[in-house]
Amino acid sequence: MPSEPLPLSLSAPPVVRADAARNRAKLLEAAQTLVREQGAENVTMEAVAAAACVGKGTVFRRFGDRAGLMYALLDQGERDFQQAFIFGPPPLGPGAPPVERLEAFGAALLRHLERHLDVFVAASREPVKRLGVGPARVHATHIAMLLQQAKVGGDVEQLTQVLLGFFEPSQVKYLLTERGRSVEDLERGWRDLVRRITHRC
Amino acid sequence: MPSEPLPLSLSAPPVVRADAARNRAKLLEAAQTLVREQGAENVTMEAVAAAACVGKGTVFRRFGDRAGLMYALLDQGERDFQQAFIFGPPPLGPGAPPVERLEAFGAALLRHLERHLDVFVAASREPVKRLGVGPARVHATHIAMLLQQAKVGGDVEQLTQVLLGFFEPSQVKYLLTERGRSVEDLERGWRDLVRRITHRC
Repeated sequence: MPSEPLPLSLSAPPVVRADAARNRAKLLEAAQTLVREQGAENVTMEAVAAAACVGKGTVFRRFGDRAGLMYALLDQGERDFQQAFIFGPPPLGPGAPPVERLEAFGAALLRHLERHLDVFVAASREPVKRLGVGPARVHATHIAMLLQQAKVGGDVEQLTQVLLGFFEPSQVKYLLTERGRSVEDLERGWRDLVRRITHRC
Repeated sequence: MPSEPLPLSLSAPPVVRADAARNRAKLLEAAQTLVREQGAENVTMEAVAAAACVGKGTVFRRFGDRAGLMYALLDQGERDFQQAFIFGPPPLGPGAPPVERLEAFGAALLRHLERHLDVFVAASREPVKRLGVGPARVHATHIAMLLQQAKVGGDVEQLTQVLLGFFEPSQVKYLLTERGRSVEDLERGWRDLVRRITHRC
């Protein structure tokens, strides 16, 4: 009899969970308002706690850190986006040829990113302008020069960023340590990538 | 007469600079030893200060933050690498066709990364396993599925990472804000990239 209320001892956990969900929603609402008013980059865990009238520790316990809070803010938009590319109409959803779906996926993800850009940046824990400073800039200049010399066409700046992204240290580490890849695998992957990107068909 | 010693008042600044350079070298040596003994991820600014017998504030003033210290540790290796791809023998240096040089560049950068991987990761301020968790994992799964359906060949996992890297939030923000690009530019760049990567010549 599923409509029969459960004995209190059994229903207690769901009550606690509903309460937790309400608290979480309250915190997210406060954070959302602060993001709207001050910009994501200026929102601190302390300010969210103050706005929701709870202790700072509650916000940290709930979201781990500031990036975790920002991820939580993206959650609904992310679920809508996932819904669209997994179940929605083509070309984003099933029904179109795979390459068309891949093109549509990027176009939709770019809009999704643009809509919440500062929250995404705050959630990514990474500094902006990474490509504008340090060794990466020298590497980018070199790659761009070679792409220009090879007359590959297209948008050289964007192609350069894509190629440079191949060497993102934590990505390389992920492949070598978590995925058991060898440097030789990566080198083969790089050469294949260069050929795909530079070959004018 | 360039060999004549300069008057003391003029030579004083170089002496100060030489002193600063010595202090910097001492801190880097201490940091290098700690990295070798404990791994880059476990080296704190406090530990470097203690090992070099200076105050914590000195280390922060000199390097800004932990990532800055790690960048400084990479400096010599980075200069050698830059020397090699700018002035060294082909195919890495000048003299080979551009696509060959691009292939050689990646192969050399991968070795450079591998040699100092943990220092690079510590310098990049970014968490490892970014691609193993959260929405990025769902996006990666989707991209990999479409690449497989499109029968593009190559190493699907690596191609997926490259394509996913296109949407790195701080990179998108850099292009939109620092480089004055439009979302339409980025969308064109994405479609061009997809065609290059999926087109089997």
